[in-house]
Amino acid sequence: MPQADRERSATERDAMARALQLALHGPRGVNPQVGAVILSPAGEVLAEGWHRGAGTPHAEIDALTNLAAAHGPAAARGATAIVTLEPCNHTGRTGPCAEALLDAGIARVVYAVDDPGVLSGGGGAHLRRGGVDVEAGLLRAEGTALLDSWLTVQRLGRPHVTVKWAQSLDGRAAASDGTSQWITGPLARADVHARRAAADAIVVGTGTLLADDPALTARRGDGTLYDHQPRPVVVGTRAVPQEAAVRQHPRPFLQDEGDDLVDLLGRLREFGAQRVFIEGGPRLASSFVRDGLVDELLVYLAPTLLGGERLALGDLGVTTIADQRRLTVSDVRRLGDDLLVVAHPDLPAKEED
Amino acid sequence: MPQADRERSATERDAMARALQLALHGPRGVNPQVGAVILSPAGEVLAEGWHRGAGTPHAEIDALTNLAAAHGPAAARGATAIVTLEPCNHTGRTGPCAEALLDAGIARVVYAVDDPGVLSGGGGAHLRRGGVDVEAGLLRAEGTALLDSWLTVQRLGRPHVTVKWAQSLDGRAAASDGTSQWITGPLARADVHARRAAADAIVVGTGTLLADDPALTARRGDGTLYDHQPRPVVVGTRAVPQEAAVRQHPRPFLQDEGDDLVDLLGRLREFGAQRVFIEGGPRLASSFVRDGLVDELLVYLAPTLLGGERLALGDLGVTTIADQRRLTVSDVRRLGDDLLVVAHPDLPAKEED
Repeated sequence: MPQADRERSATERDAMARALQLALHGPRGVNPQVGAVILSPAGEVLAEGWHRGAGTPHAEIDALTNLAAAHGPAAARGATAIVTLEPCNHTGRTGPCAEALLDAGIARVVYAVDDPGVLSGGGGAHLRRGGVDVEAGLLRAEGTALLDSWLTVQRLGRPHVTVKWAQSLDGRAAASDGTSQWITGPLARADVHARRAAADAIVVGTGTLLADDPALTARRGDGTLYDHQPRPVVVGTRAVPQEAAVRQHPRPFLQDEGDDLVDLLGRLREFGAQRVFIEGGPRLASSFVRDGLVDELLVYLAPTLLGGERLALGDLGVTTIADQRRLTVSDVRRLGDDLLVVAHPDLPAKEED
Repeated sequence: MPQADRERSATERDAMARALQLALHGPRGVNPQVGAVILSPAGEVLAEGWHRGAGTPHAEIDALTNLAAAHGPAAARGATAIVTLEPCNHTGRTGPCAEALLDAGIARVVYAVDDPGVLSGGGGAHLRRGGVDVEAGLLRAEGTALLDSWLTVQRLGRPHVTVKWAQSLDGRAAASDGTSQWITGPLARADVHARRAAADAIVVGTGTLLADDPALTARRGDGTLYDHQPRPVVVGTRAVPQEAAVRQHPRPFLQDEGDDLVDLLGRLREFGAQRVFIEGGPRLASSFVRDGLVDELLVYLAPTLLGGERLALGDLGVTTIADQRRLTVSDVRRLGDDLLVVAHPDLPAKEED
């Protein structure tokens, strides 16, 4: 690589890292978090921008607006736009970004992640046809991690689903009489709460609700609430008692019959949920696994043996070993005395026929 | 600490590390592996010794004999004996080592691990009464690790018991139809075989024998046998078929009714087994856990979910959470796609009332 190209490459990489940070300024919601940086032909940062949520300008438009305000309307001519997501190609509540970049005279566009959307995708190709030099995939892994749940929604048309359970090493959720308090320790519970705080909806079955009366809030170690609270969702037909703790949740709970989990996820998406956290109990967790609707599994393993019939996971419809649900373990960590195994189903989650 | 004491301390530590290596020259069997080093008052190594197995001289005697041969009968006078195990105080097939060290004129004895034996213990106190300067506990952890199974036998009067099983993440040993082939991968299986080769007996129930027809040998990756093979033991009353693979094992199998596991372990100890490896199936593993006869658990977790009724561990008699069998996890490691959890029961294994 010639010296000038190497320098450009390093400059653009730095700008993409910066754009990924800018993206985080935006809210997590129905729209993706996106950041943008505009570089002069010499590699100086001319302007920055990010997307502030549904109905507001996309990151590229925000950056172009900032650029024009600081350097005049012609400053984009010949410049390079560094964007974390492929510029969109469709007119939603805002105009297509690919067109705006062309109009402004941007000469080169570098983006991290392809837009998988049927309507919104294809912006890169549109820019190329317009004579812009386009490069895709710079810091793609980092960009994909940032957009994990949004990409799931685009790809599968449903929210990203995390199923969590705690079990003894031998796979039990409780002793024979149903007692299970504190099989995992404080670090494991704190980890669960931090992950709840990153979810948009938290789902339990009525069986668990009636047995354990969970608050379904995301709490810090001192008992205070995290700023972001997932919306509580109760699945099943049995009534939620007047005195149930979930009625004290800062957000009103939804109740769903739960006879069709794909429909349930569709309804959760409608109210803007991109990350759904399935808390249990065993029947609900098993149903999500059986229906192939799991993107991430969090299994908290307590160092204890219980034996007996109170299983953390019930029947999955696996009758022979060829039908096993293989996983890829992405992380194993010790949380005090407990273990957390983070795993993902090996085949892409799909609806059953 | 004065300079001279610091130097002596470092010299004795080095000598103990050497003695621990020497101990490994001896055979693993009914008797402990013990090493000894004799230092001059100036800290030079005068002689070394180790125990070569039941009926042969203990390590201290071996070292004193080597010392006399090399430097004459008076060379032990004023010297320091570094021994990995407290010198014995009783007359078994050989005379008491504490007495021999006193007779030889040894001035100082340093040992790593106390002898817990009712008959053989107390050598340190005997030496002190004889005017010898005695220090206990140098490199105790290393010495204890070396003597793990022997110490179990001394303390509990039975062999050290390892219970191993492989399970899916959700605690199943097989799919509903009983198929389970290859739920764990080649690295996990190789690990099992290496650990089998360190055991003196390998135990299976007749159910597993009839279902899986295991060879119960310890094999390397290329299929060849390890030099040391555990003796196969079949537990249960059903007959071992004429064509069973276990009949091809290089060592003849034992069969035991298995109605009393303490008696079984006693019989295994009688033929010299200090390390017993319980291979399954679920009923036998559960029985050992339920009876509190487990010193070490090896749980191989395959990254897969099976659901259903084929549990890796059955009923443990735990009816309420207060009766749970808590464990301490000493190691978690990834073996290819699988996880190995090594754990120990929190309370000392004991016989039930």
